[in-house]
Amino acid sequence: MKKAIVVASINTSFPNDEKHYFGVDRGALYLSKQGIMMEEAIGDFDTVNEDEMNLISKYSKNIHRLNQIKDETDLEVALSRIINLNFKEIDIYGALGGRVDHLYANLILLNRYINQAKIKLIDVNNEITILNEKKEYELLKNKFKYHSFFAQDEALISLEGFKYDLYHYLLTKNDIITISNEIMSKRAKLTIHSGSLLYIQSKDKY
Amino acid sequence: MKKAIVVASINTSFPNDEKHYFGVDRGALYLSKQGIMMEEAIGDFDTVNEDEMNLISKYSKNIHRLNQIKDETDLEVALSRIINLNFKEIDIYGALGGRVDHLYANLILLNRYINQAKIKLIDVNNEITILNEKKEYELLKNKFKYHSFFAQDEALISLEGFKYDLYHYLLTKNDIITISNEIMSKRAKLTIHSGSLLYIQSKDKY
Repeated sequence: MKKAIVVASINTSFPNDEKHYFGVDRGALYLSKQGIMMEEAIGDFDTVNEDEMNLISKYSKNIHRLNQIKDETDLEVALSRIINLNFKEIDIYGALGGRVDHLYANLILLNRYINQAKIKLIDVNNEITILNEKKEYELLKNKFKYHSFFAQDEALISLEGFKYDLYHYLLTKNDIITISNEIMSKRAKLTIHSGSLLYIQSKDKY
Repeated sequence: MKKAIVVASINTSFPNDEKHYFGVDRGALYLSKQGIMMEEAIGDFDTVNEDEMNLISKYSKNIHRLNQIKDETDLEVALSRIINLNFKEIDIYGALGGRVDHLYANLILLNRYINQAKIKLIDVNNEITILNEKKEYELLKNKFKYHSFFAQDEALISLEGFKYDLYHYLLTKNDIITISNEIMSKRAKLTIHSGSLLYIQSKDKY
């Protein structure tokens, strides 16, 4: 299964042993400065100077330059192009810091391609994805202490092996009862009986 | 109209000329260190030592100490108590940084009391609220460059005087077309014909 690594800002930590990189706007500059070859650099590059643009060109198989006046965000265009290239797994780094409007828009984008690819938003303290299959998920204890589940509309779920377990609980979209749960032993079980969940793994900054 | 200022974390900038302050967990410590008298300090205070707790007591008319094991977040309990005290306007500072799960939960809380109070989440770079009245809103050019609107479910809206105007546009919850708009002159007009919006004002960090 083809996996894309998307880097959307500078000073972002990302894995350097993958095959297919995409740089979004200043993320493309950051990747090229690390000497990482990109499938494509996408953005309006309005804050990038000529020397920097040359560096990006050197490290990109393709550059997709957007008009500054546009109806879509850079990441939105990038995702649509990556989906069209048939990537089924897309990890996005550097899309959670900064402005809350962008963060919120990026959560919306997670939803848009839910049936075409498994998309994650990742930074050092958070990993976010959508779970929408009616099945039992095995979740492993990992570097993230907290596991939070939010219903998209509503979701019927069960949790087993967590600090706070639930049995056939109907979670509504205004419910925050399933925030900051913790996996008690090595693994735990989440069952989605119906609906879909925003799944946020997180740890404290300090 | 009674206005509550809620401070939910440390190193948070907030106005110091208001009448009614509430400190949530370490926010209460921060307020007491600034010598500001609180109506109430609310939290489990699990990271606060005895000396700090004494300082909080000195600056709080009332302390509502929560069990560490609880089904609700500290801010959730605080909001419910403040609403019960009949505050109609609640500005929350220090609830946008840190973990994305908390940020997302706080966006959900904005919704919960929509018919009882006007609640805002505020930090130096963002101001977030929900607009749910079918009317014409006059929005003034201010320190926030960007004005973003997201539909809660769906909303029919018009924008006039913005960089990107819209006329009777049906915004759905997966739509991010109305992100990062800008007010062109002194004032602009948003009309909500139906539905409700998450309204995020923001500016870049640098």
